[in-house]
Amino acid sequence: MNPKRYLPILQWLPDYGRSALASDLLAAVIVTIMLIPQSLAYAMLAGLPPEVGLYASITPLVVYAVFGTSRTLAVGPVAVVSLMTAAAVGQVAPQGTPEYLGAALVLALMSGLILTLMGVARLGFLANFLSHPVISGFITASGLIIAASQLKHVLGVEASGHNLLELVVGLGGQLGSVNLPTLVIGLGVLAFLYAARRWLKPTLRRLGVPSRPADMLTKAAPILAVAVTTLASWGLRLDQHGVAVVGAVPAGLPPLTLPGFDSGLWSQLFVAALLISIVGFVESVSVGQTLAAKRRQRIDPDQELVGLGTSNIAASLTGGMPVTGGFSRSVVNFDAGAETPAAGAFTAVGIGVAALLLTPLIAYLPIATLAATIIVAVLSLVDFAAIKRTWDYSRGDFAAMLATIAVTLGHGVESGIMVGVGLSLALHLYRTSRPHSAVVGRVPGTEHFRNVQRHRVETDERLTILRVDESLYFANARYLEDTVMELAARQPGLEHIVLACQAVNIIDASALESLEAINARLKDSGVALHLAEVKGPVMDRLQHTEFCHEMTGKVFLSTFDAWQELRGVGDGRLSRRCAEMQLGAVPGATFDDEAQPHPRLP
Amino acid sequence: MNPKRYLPILQWLPDYGRSALASDLLAAVIVTIMLIPQSLAYAMLAGLPPEVGLYASITPLVVYAVFGTSRTLAVGPVAVVSLMTAAAVGQVAPQGTPEYLGAALVLALMSGLILTLMGVARLGFLANFLSHPVISGFITASGLIIAASQLKHVLGVEASGHNLLELVVGLGGQLGSVNLPTLVIGLGVLAFLYAARRWLKPTLRRLGVPSRPADMLTKAAPILAVAVTTLASWGLRLDQHGVAVVGAVPAGLPPLTLPGFDSGLWSQLFVAALLISIVGFVESVSVGQTLAAKRRQRIDPDQELVGLGTSNIAASLTGGMPVTGGFSRSVVNFDAGAETPAAGAFTAVGIGVAALLLTPLIAYLPIATLAATIIVAVLSLVDFAAIKRTWDYSRGDFAAMLATIAVTLGHGVESGIMVGVGLSLALHLYRTSRPHSAVVGRVPGTEHFRNVQRHRVETDERLTILRVDESLYFANARYLEDTVMELAARQPGLEHIVLACQAVNIIDASALESLEAINARLKDSGVALHLAEVKGPVMDRLQHTEFCHEMTGKVFLSTFDAWQELRGVGDGRLSRRCAEMQLGAVPGATFDDEAQPHPRLP
Repeated sequence: MNPKRYLPILQWLPDYGRSALASDLLAAVIVTIMLIPQSLAYAMLAGLPPEVGLYASITPLVVYAVFGTSRTLAVGPVAVVSLMTAAAVGQVAPQGTPEYLGAALVLALMSGLILTLMGVARLGFLANFLSHPVISGFITASGLIIAASQLKHVLGVEASGHNLLELVVGLGGQLGSVNLPTLVIGLGVLAFLYAARRWLKPTLRRLGVPSRPADMLTKAAPILAVAVTTLASWGLRLDQHGVAVVGAVPAGLPPLTLPGFDSGLWSQLFVAALLISIVGFVESVSVGQTLAAKRRQRIDPDQELVGLGTSNIAASLTGGMPVTGGFSRSVVNFDAGAETPAAGAFTAVGIGVAALLLTPLIAYLPIATLAATIIVAVLSLVDFAAIKRTWDYSRGDFAAMLATIAVTLGHGVESGIMVGVGLSLALHLYRTSRPHSAVVGRVPGTEHFRNVQRHRVETDERLTILRVDESLYFANARYLEDTVMELAARQPGLEHIVLACQAVNIIDASALESLEAINARLKDSGVALHLAEVKGPVMDRLQHTEFCHEMTGKVFLSTFDAWQELRGVGDGRLSRRCAEMQLGAVPGATFDDEAQPHPRLP
Repeated sequence: MNPKRYLPILQWLPDYGRSALASDLLAAVIVTIMLIPQSLAYAMLAGLPPEVGLYASITPLVVYAVFGTSRTLAVGPVAVVSLMTAAAVGQVAPQGTPEYLGAALVLALMSGLILTLMGVARLGFLANFLSHPVISGFITASGLIIAASQLKHVLGVEASGHNLLELVVGLGGQLGSVNLPTLVIGLGVLAFLYAARRWLKPTLRRLGVPSRPADMLTKAAPILAVAVTTLASWGLRLDQHGVAVVGAVPAGLPPLTLPGFDSGLWSQLFVAALLISIVGFVESVSVGQTLAAKRRQRIDPDQELVGLGTSNIAASLTGGMPVTGGFSRSVVNFDAGAETPAAGAFTAVGIGVAALLLTPLIAYLPIATLAATIIVAVLSLVDFAAIKRTWDYSRGDFAAMLATIAVTLGHGVESGIMVGVGLSLALHLYRTSRPHSAVVGRVPGTEHFRNVQRHRVETDERLTILRVDESLYFANARYLEDTVMELAARQPGLEHIVLACQAVNIIDASALESLEAINARLKDSGVALHLAEVKGPVMDRLQHTEFCHEMTGKVFLSTFDAWQELRGVGDGRLSRRCAEMQLGAVPGATFDDEAQPHPRLP
């Protein structure tokens, strides 16, 4: 085995030079500044004390630098995962209790173990069952829920709820008791951050600031808002006027924590941990791939699982919370010129310093400010255009997307994602349960065969050629039986049916039995069954079967050969009885092994 | 709409002639004789009074004659469904109670409604998700359980259990209290029926009896066993020597029954009803298709659902139990020369007469006799050869089969079938999550392109052609991203990547986004993305998308055109920018609509 594969750090550390160091350090400074308010905010979103967010942005970054394959991915608490954490942990313990904190640690540990095991077992492909419409619908819905859940902090009222409905109703009842100073701060920060996103960069550019610094300054707007509002609330003692502030935050490095091993708790949190792992992985891996591609780098999804898994384990052992690769911070890291994961390690140092020295200053930070930063951040996740696009492109995908959004908003994040996955799988299975197939005829003067319903082609009433356009497996095998028997019943004069198999990569045991049934039934009704253009690996498997010996017809090199010989024109050079073909040494290039052997279960 | 489709009886009744009448009547007589002991036995297997079996063999046959599409299928109680009925009803009520009878009626009604609704909604394809290895493993396991469950009657002891383990253990504890006369009858009948199956027909043939009558006589052996043992137990008053007999059976036609509508009971039985419906349907439809093919007839699976559904509803309204098309009785019906479902209706009359007149004679029929007939019947369902075949052909399918058998034997029929279906679906999804693909090169001197790993072909380091062998959907879309980006990263000098799409029937929304991502990332790394041999329907959909406009490369008529033009040889006549192609009127036959539009959800 290759250590560089399992310890990606070995790919860059040995020849780590001064120039890389310089750019990594610069990136680290910028990301640190951006990360401080984000970490506090997402900890709050997860219903955890602000310092937990900082802790979760230290050790995980170092660990990811060792095991992660992306050069520029920045891990830490992110909005959607924090929301899912709040939803999951909220079910087993009330916020603010030590049990709640403990459950968050357990969740991080479980998710870490799940991700690592999936990576070791190379199960990265499981994430693929989260289809794009489902994940995008889920993130849009989550963004809306998160924004709604933060409104109460902006208004300075009490309200709670796990889905949009509850949240809105909760807020409605509270509008009477809005706290004015809080509202001023909240709306002020919202307006400022929105304006910064919208106009700051263009303005700076017009003032002659080069693009990248302008970008950086824009990204730093939240820290400015934090500084100003904190000063204001300290100077005006706003906490005495009903403005909720973060309050005393313990200064110091992350504590060592040992998550509890209460089996009851673990089984309660398992599904949530699994979903958080997969959602986090999908989000992270797509960010990583996008950035890697810009520099023609590669990331290894299975190793990424290990990288994220170990990061979460580290988080759980150092008073953190579930983490994954975040989009905005990774982009900043990339744009700031980070060259290696060392930038992440340096960022960790920066956050560590902040945790040591800056926490006292945070005490007066108004929660409304954090809420506002969250709202602005997550609303950029809401993508209604994607919904429209999906509707235009495929109604089926749209149905899965809509269901995900509706259930997520109306019932909760976990059921939302599960319904989406279930529906998109059902849709796919439905689609493949009717294999594409077309009766083809000869395009005059060529060796080319086309769909008789769409082309003016030569046909022969004694001969029907059916092109099968998909692999044959249990869900579509019986449909093939029906199709073939229907053809046979429809055409009294029929003598031969040829299945053209150029698109058949697999024939599973059910499909094989269907072929046996088709062969037997056609035999009963006096029609011979032939195969054409069978791929090598498929042919090899068929040769060991009874079907191969009982098959009434022959196996042809090409559809054209079948057409010629079965109409008495060809010389039969290019056809064989299935049972007569020697394994391996099959005649004609078409029988050579064209395809990679199809995957087996481990 | 065409009434003949929804009332198949109209297809044959109008021109029903005397000859058909004659052969149908003969078949009916033979099937009736065979059906009487079977009906009694399967009712007992389901834990129901014997007359229920007779009732279930009357109205359902008449109703199926009206709505069913198979000319020769014989419906009624069958072994596997009876076992599943016993398992399901046993969970909600103790045997011998009116509740147990009522639950059986509810089960028949629910299963009837499910089947009918599935038929109306044309959901017949759902049955396809029961793969051949799973169904055959399930039937083998059921056969073993049924045989084991009947042994106690042969031994004349008390024992019970829902899985093989419980049954065997139960029997073990009872061997002390075996009832000798029962044992004699049981083993005697077993030996006789086995001998009949094995030697009767050959012997008769040697004695010059023609094949078909010999066959009929063999099939009639059970009724002989019933007659003889009944006489014996009556003459020798065996019931007073501890031989369990059927006892008084009410004489008369089926009662009118109204199944209860207790919502609690319905929800308890729902899953069982669903599984019974699907298993029964699969068994029935495969028998029907096999027989239909022998006479070049067709059966319509969706209409079959309606036929079986209405039959079950009829059964539930006339004191019956869940029914479906049985294999042995249908074969007998077919061999006896039945030409139309009228034979079934006549059989119903025959059974009705039996229910009216013969029931008094049944009182002394030893239960051991029925148990013996069941054992002999179900052991013919046990197919170990199929297990071996599946192992030889595909380890994956074998795994699903083995799991089905193990869970069915070890835990129960319902969990057995569900585990099997789940596992085979997971296996299929795993297989398709890695789409077949191969980098191809030009076979020298031809326009033919083959796998570079297997053929000596021309390649070009500026150009990579990837042949994609499967439809692209969410589960394999990201795998395609990885494959393509890996190719790009591996080949520094690369300028063009061509995806050859001859086997791509669908590109779903996720795959489309993957293509967009691939296009964007390749663009970032200075590689152009091209498509070749795109099918008409796929092209039509692509044209409405952003991808079509952002695509860096072109769309080629054929792989060869791409090879020529991208190497500066071709004249570009046969390529277009995606956005430039007019919908419908796309250049070149390859762009014409080759495939049927892929199915949408209703």
